[in-house]
Amino acid sequence: MKQLQDAILKYGNAVNEHVLKVDAFLNHQIDPTLMNEMAIDIIEHFKHKEIDKVVTIESSGIAPALMVAYQLNVPLVFFKKSTSSILNGECYQSHVHSFTKNIDYILTASHDYIHADEKILFVDDFLANGEAALGAADIIKQANASMVGIAIIIEKSFQPGRERLVTEGYDVYSLARIKKMAAKHIEFIND
Amino acid sequence: MKQLQDAILKYGNAVNEHVLKVDAFLNHQIDPTLMNEMAIDIIEHFKHKEIDKVVTIESSGIAPALMVAYQLNVPLVFFKKSTSSILNGECYQSHVHSFTKNIDYILTASHDYIHADEKILFVDDFLANGEAALGAADIIKQANASMVGIAIIIEKSFQPGRERLVTEGYDVYSLARIKKMAAKHIEFIND
Repeated sequence: MKQLQDAILKYGNAVNEHVLKVDAFLNHQIDPTLMNEMAIDIIEHFKHKEIDKVVTIESSGIAPALMVAYQLNVPLVFFKKSTSSILNGECYQSHVHSFTKNIDYILTASHDYIHADEKILFVDDFLANGEAALGAADIIKQANASMVGIAIIIEKSFQPGRERLVTEGYDVYSLARIKKMAAKHIEFIND
Repeated sequence: MKQLQDAILKYGNAVNEHVLKVDAFLNHQIDPTLMNEMAIDIIEHFKHKEIDKVVTIESSGIAPALMVAYQLNVPLVFFKKSTSSILNGECYQSHVHSFTKNIDYILTASHDYIHADEKILFVDDFLANGEAALGAADIIKQANASMVGIAIIIEKSFQPGRERLVTEGYDVYSLARIKKMAAKHIEFIND
């Protein structure tokens, strides 16, 4: 998506080969108009799929996912990141290791908001190793719902996330795919 | 705001005199249409004010705040909750004690996204003791910006938050004001 690539080139900060900071429009400050344009693009890609619910992960997924859910007129559920397991039996949980931040967390969702047979579109800000998306997929499986698609704002295509998700059979759509990075240098894959 | 009061009565869970769970439409699952309606109401209230930027706090403030920022066509900045101080000198920080959750955190915002003289509308999901809003106000003061208004989705009017903010001179607008609660019972203040 050209507007997003332009925003990444103009406002993104490629710190090194692995770290891209987009605090200017996605991860700290948010450009609502860009969120809306991205949502239009995501919905166009998945227009042939039936979608009952949008799911994302707090915090940075919420803004783009909300715009998608608003336009589709379906609820949004954001999965929470917890540092410890919750033992009350009312939550789905999945262990996630973030290679990017080198932290572990428990992805958590209440039984009340993911139901059997729901068709879910997962939206997230970054795809690198795919751990977060696979954790979300695990929760959706636990609920006997189905993940009909995965929409990613920025994919680090030089990391194995996409391949892992595609191997699992998921339909992955990324708005910007980064082929390689270095300090102050970003190259995209243009399909 | 009637639609919000209706949603609170229908989907909210008053656990006891102090705890109201609105995970069904705000804090875990989000109703995007309601977020949009709430944003329209907030903007109507503050229509005579100049607003350069919307600020909120992660995670549950992001959805309503994004809809406000989108309609006003201004950026949204979400302040982050950190468990420890960041010592790199690039962030504004303010210590917040949450009486509701009985935890302390450091509210954090980069110098890059709050600027001197900006006119800021603060939007948050709950107002109880006012600690979070006062923390946000502290950061906005540190940046020499000004907080032109505070929009709250649900105010627990039986707690001192509103009074503390009004005493400090802030224009506080709450979409739903809860006079008192008990298990399964909620009474509103209707202005």
